[in-house]
Amino acid sequence: MLGLDPDPLALWPQAFEESGSSGAGPAERTARAVARHCRLVIDAAGPACVAIKPQLACFERLGSSGWRALEETVEHARECGLLVLADGKRGDVPVTAAAYAQGLCGETPGPFGAVPGLGADAFTVNPLLGRDALDPFADAAAAAGAGLFCLVRTSNPGAADVQDLETPQGPVHEQLARMVDGLSGRLAGSGELSGAGAVTGATRPDLLRRLRELMPRAPLLLPGVGAQGGSVEALAGARGAHPAACLVAASRSIAGAHGERGGQPAAAAAEAATEMRQVAWSRLA
Amino acid sequence: MLGLDPDPLALWPQAFEESGSSGAGPAERTARAVARHCRLVIDAAGPACVAIKPQLACFERLGSSGWRALEETVEHARECGLLVLADGKRGDVPVTAAAYAQGLCGETPGPFGAVPGLGADAFTVNPLLGRDALDPFADAAAAAGAGLFCLVRTSNPGAADVQDLETPQGPVHEQLARMVDGLSGRLAGSGELSGAGAVTGATRPDLLRRLRELMPRAPLLLPGVGAQGGSVEALAGARGAHPAACLVAASRSIAGAHGERGGQPAAAAAEAATEMRQVAWSRLA
Repeated sequence: MLGLDPDPLALWPQAFEESGSSGAGPAERTARAVARHCRLVIDAAGPACVAIKPQLACFERLGSSGWRALEETVEHARECGLLVLADGKRGDVPVTAAAYAQGLCGETPGPFGAVPGLGADAFTVNPLLGRDALDPFADAAAAAGAGLFCLVRTSNPGAADVQDLETPQGPVHEQLARMVDGLSGRLAGSGELSGAGAVTGATRPDLLRRLRELMPRAPLLLPGVGAQGGSVEALAGARGAHPAACLVAASRSIAGAHGERGGQPAAAAAEAATEMRQVAWSRLA
Repeated sequence: MLGLDPDPLALWPQAFEESGSSGAGPAERTARAVARHCRLVIDAAGPACVAIKPQLACFERLGSSGWRALEETVEHARECGLLVLADGKRGDVPVTAAAYAQGLCGETPGPFGAVPGLGADAFTVNPLLGRDALDPFADAAAAAGAGLFCLVRTSNPGAADVQDLETPQGPVHEQLARMVDGLSGRLAGSGELSGAGAVTGATRPDLLRRLRELMPRAPLLLPGVGAQGGSVEALAGARGAHPAACLVAASRSIAGAHGERGGQPAAAAAEAATEMRQVAWSRLA
C-alpha cells in the first residue's frame, strides 16, 4: 500500500513544474505542488501497489487548498485503478462519527442535493470512544461497500501507555481487537476476510500472533515497516487464511527512495515499491 | 462555549440569502450556506460566549468547500473577539500528530513560505496513542500560546467500553487524567489554571470529583449539556480554584433554540446562550 504523507519541503523537483503561477498565496501554491507530487508518486509506484493511503494530516495542514489537493489525489488514484484508504484515525461521539463517515465514504444530505464525500474505499478509525462510536463508521462502510481499519496496537513507542494497560480481560489492545472482531460480521470482505480490519503496528511483531487469534477475519494494516524500523520478515504471525489478510504500508521509504538509492525519484520509487511488494507477498501471503 | 456543528438540513433560513448563485455545485453552495449560518449564530449568541467550538467533522464532510467555510467561520469569530476551540479529536503517531498540530495552531514550512494553519486558540486531542503522540500537540500549543483538551471520559454511553476498563492503576480514564496532569507544567494557562485541559463528559457527573483531584490545574470541557442530557447543575464536582476551570459547550440547544422557544432563530439563540451562561457561572465558577 502506497502511503502518501507529503512533506512540502521534500517534494520531487518535477512537482514544481506547473505550480509557479501568478497571484496565489503560499497555501495554494504549496497545495498545488503537493497534488502534483502525489500524482507523480502514484504514477511511479502505483503499479506495484493495490491502494494509496493518504495521510489526511499532511493535506489538512494546508487548509482548504490542501483538502482540494487530497480530493485531486484521490481522483487520480481512482483513475489509475487503485483503492483509497483514507488515513485520518477519526473518532468521536456517535452523532459526530456519523458526520465523519459521511465525509469519508458517504454523502451529506443538503438543501442543494447530496454533497459527496471523499469516496474512500476504506479508512482508519480510533476506537477510544467505544462501540457506539464505531457503529456509525461501520454502518456507513457497510452501505458504501467500504472497509475500516480500527486502531488496535499502534507502532509508536508511547502506544504502550494506554493500549498495553492490563485489564481483567487482558491488555487494552486485546479488548480493542475483540471490538473489531465484533464488527466482522457486518462488513463484507473478500472470501474469509471481513471488511473490519485493524491497525497493528509492525514494530511489535511479538503481539501479532495473539491479535490474529482474536481477529481471525480481520485484514491487518501493518504500519511501521521501513522508516519506523519494522521489517516485513518479522510479521509472519499476522498471516491469515487469505493472501490479503496482511497489508503493508510504506510512504517515506518509497517517495524518498532516491535519497538512499540515488537516481531519479520516480525510478527509485518504482524500484522500492516493487521490492517491497515481492517481500510482502513472499512472507505474508 | 458556542458549539458549531452545522447540519445542512437545519440551517437558519437567513443563511440562504446570499448563496443562491450561479454555476456552483452542491458542495460549494451548501458550504457557503453553512458559513453564513455560522456567522449568524456567532453574531446572535457570541456575545454570551467566550469561544466558538467548531466541530471539524461537520465542515470536512463538505470537502474543500467545507474546509473553506471553517476558515471563514474561524476568521469571523476572531473578528468578534471570540476564542476558537477546534474540536477535531485528532490523534496519531508523533510525526503525524506534529502535522495535525501545524494545521491546528502552527504553520507548515514550505517552498513558497510558511503556510499558516487554522490559528486555533485550543483544540481537542485523542490520547489513545500515548504520551509521545501527545507531545507534538503540547509542543505546538506551547509555542503558539494555545491550549489543548485531551479526551479523558467522553459523554457517550459507549465511552465505558474502553475508558472505564479497570487497570491496576484504576480505570483507564484515570490513567488518561494523569497523562493530562503530566502536561500541565508545559502549557501556560491563566492563574492556577494550566493550558492542558480535559474533555470530561457532563453525562457522568459522579466521576468528576475524582477526575478533578487527578487534574487540579486542568480546565475541564464538559460536553453533553443540553441535547445529550447532562445538566449544568450536576457538575459542581468539576469546580476548580479558578472560575474558568469548567467550560460548558452547547451547540444544538443554542442554534436550534427557536424549535423549542419559538420566535426568530437569532433571538432564541441569544436568549438560550445568555441563560446557559448565567446558570454556568452561578453553579460552576
